[in-house]
Amino acid sequence: MLDKDTIHIAETGLPFWNDLTEEQQRIICESAVIKDYRQGDMIHRSDDECRGVLLVISGQLRAYILSEDGREVTLYRLYKNDICVLSASCALDAVAFDVFIEAAENCALLIIPLSEFRRIMNENIRVELFTYKESAERFSDVMWTLQQILFMSADRRLAHFLWDESVKTGSDTIRLTHDRIAKYIGSAREVVSRMLKYFSDEGIVTLSRGRIDIKDRKKLSAYL
Amino acid sequence: MLDKDTIHIAETGLPFWNDLTEEQQRIICESAVIKDYRQGDMIHRSDDECRGVLLVISGQLRAYILSEDGREVTLYRLYKNDICVLSASCALDAVAFDVFIEAAENCALLIIPLSEFRRIMNENIRVELFTYKESAERFSDVMWTLQQILFMSADRRLAHFLWDESVKTGSDTIRLTHDRIAKYIGSAREVVSRMLKYFSDEGIVTLSRGRIDIKDRKKLSAYL
Repeated sequence: MLDKDTIHIAETGLPFWNDLTEEQQRIICESAVIKDYRQGDMIHRSDDECRGVLLVISGQLRAYILSEDGREVTLYRLYKNDICVLSASCALDAVAFDVFIEAAENCALLIIPLSEFRRIMNENIRVELFTYKESAERFSDVMWTLQQILFMSADRRLAHFLWDESVKTGSDTIRLTHDRIAKYIGSAREVVSRMLKYFSDEGIVTLSRGRIDIKDRKKLSAYL
Repeated sequence: MLDKDTIHIAETGLPFWNDLTEEQQRIICESAVIKDYRQGDMIHRSDDECRGVLLVISGQLRAYILSEDGREVTLYRLYKNDICVLSASCALDAVAFDVFIEAAENCALLIIPLSEFRRIMNENIRVELFTYKESAERFSDVMWTLQQILFMSADRRLAHFLWDESVKTGSDTIRLTHDRIAKYIGSAREVVSRMLKYFSDEGIVTLSRGRIDIKDRKKLSAYL
């Protein structure tokens, strides 16, 4: 017997729901489970089994990589109605890379088991397309982040600039355009804007029109 | 009027050829061009227009990223019948990241202009799926490489090990299993195997059963 909540969540949360046959919709509703996680819970570790496809019902997930010396790089965050493609990537036979996914806030997740999802993906080209499309776009973002942070040190350069500015002006508020900042640190405006967005997601700064406010000096100093 | 060569190359080289309508096949054959490049020619720079989808007819392409201090990291290489998805990625509206593609050998490429390819991708879900699938799998490999090289320094650790071994034994041949090497450098066998494959693609070593031969000490020393 089907759980009304699961059906409603699947209907509203899965973009490919209407492309599914009734049989496929039934399989999802019967196999999917709703699970709650507390902030800080580890949801996916590279070394254990793939959970399947995750739909965020509420809360926030954070995907990150961890170096041997314990340095963390956040790859992206997932919010309500986002679908976790890295956990889906095992369904894609794409080379899994070592990623951790944790509950950045208390979360409720709809989990579609891998075997059922894989079966539906093989039957339904629209589901397959959706999954690969999500992955390709997510991966592309992730590569941008890895390249800027690990290769160009854009995070460190921006952090140094913000830190020095706030020291110089004796204020946590920096009133400069992204374009201007880009010129100062010898980067591109788009890079600065996206890196500031990254800092804002990390809770380091808040962004508003024409101003940047440093919210967490301790976190910021970790990038220096 | 259609060029016989182009038709033959498109038929044999494009995996989705048989999923195309006659009209779509005609569009490709009429719009695609065959172009020759000499070793070292720059084929794609992040800052210029997307050429469209590239099919390698002969030769080898190398995709790499370049840091401000001029450090290069090879992301992957493309060989005969490979399709360049990074140049296609502009068709995917995925966030382009700063990548360079050069002719690693003299090449002949079939170039399908972006506008025609995008039109066909929008009409034909199988072409769209192929493109995203290629991208997702390529991106996943690339992320693995970026993570291992830029974050875990797996390349440097392996290079140091190979260098020290060859000094210790006074030989360019290292007779150790990947598993053993992994234990020595505190990594996983899969990481060592893939990193050795990477070194072999870079022309630094040659691999054969149970042995690794250092072919280019100068290139190897660049990783120390």
